[in-house]
Amino acid sequence: MTLHPTDHAGLEILPFADCLRLLDSVPVGRVGFFADGEIVILPVNYLADGQNVIFRTGAGSKLSSIGSRNLVGFEADDYDVGTHSGWSVVISGFTEVVESEEEIRRLNDLGLRAWARPEEEVPTWIRIRPTSVTGRRTPGSAFGG
Amino acid sequence: MTLHPTDHAGLEILPFADCLRLLDSVPVGRVGFFADGEIVILPVNYLADGQNVIFRTGAGSKLSSIGSRNLVGFEADDYDVGTHSGWSVVISGFTEVVESEEEIRRLNDLGLRAWARPEEEVPTWIRIRPTSVTGRRTPGSAFGG
Repeated sequence: MTLHPTDHAGLEILPFADCLRLLDSVPVGRVGFFADGEIVILPVNYLADGQNVIFRTGAGSKLSSIGSRNLVGFEADDYDVGTHSGWSVVISGFTEVVESEEEIRRLNDLGLRAWARPEEEVPTWIRIRPTSVTGRRTPGSAFGG
Repeated sequence: MTLHPTDHAGLEILPFADCLRLLDSVPVGRVGFFADGEIVILPVNYLADGQNVIFRTGAGSKLSSIGSRNLVGFEADDYDVGTHSGWSVVISGFTEVVESEEEIRRLNDLGLRAWARPEEEVPTWIRIRPTSVTGRRTPGSAFGG
């Protein structure tokens, strides 16, 4: 267990490398964006791809209208109710629809599968290019360590 | 297990009563809001209080500047990696800082404790008044049932 500096709330401030490692450790995150005058947060199956987050969206989803160069938030976390411990990684950034066929083939091969969507559907890949990545963890916890 | 109608992605559309019950079943949700030109999503310990969501925020937090009548999104979920099943409840709404002393006493007595914040700090209670509440669940799953 490494101890890091803490913020105003007593949460450990995680180094960037830890954030990337933790992002890679859970399959579900949440994307927040503006739609129809509301802030909408939706869970997505995602992958950490280098320093970016990628996820799939299908026709008919509110997320499918998000397009490129849109402001988004992203969050992933994990916690243990019994010990009141956990971590979160919070990203702000912009979306980018993946258009390169070579890149789409590469992403298709990474093994990310939607849990509900019919497999025959052709998904659109969205990449989040972060403008900030921050991570926090409950103090003195080995959780996510 | 009850089967509900499904959406474009094959996810079961949950009735409002199920959404409220599921909101009550997990201790951590995520609040999404605008701050400094970014969409920020932060995890919070919360309680479902009737048809509203309430959480605490302390001085120095990005959330503490949110105030009343601000547009927010809220999301809670739970999932099982092994069976690729899970549910989510998604709320859009507006914030309201709880100012009534009687109401603050009632909320203090509900037993919600921050996992990291020092207990001596006096928190501010924020209520989310929903304008929409929607729930989804992976199909054919007893998870969250």
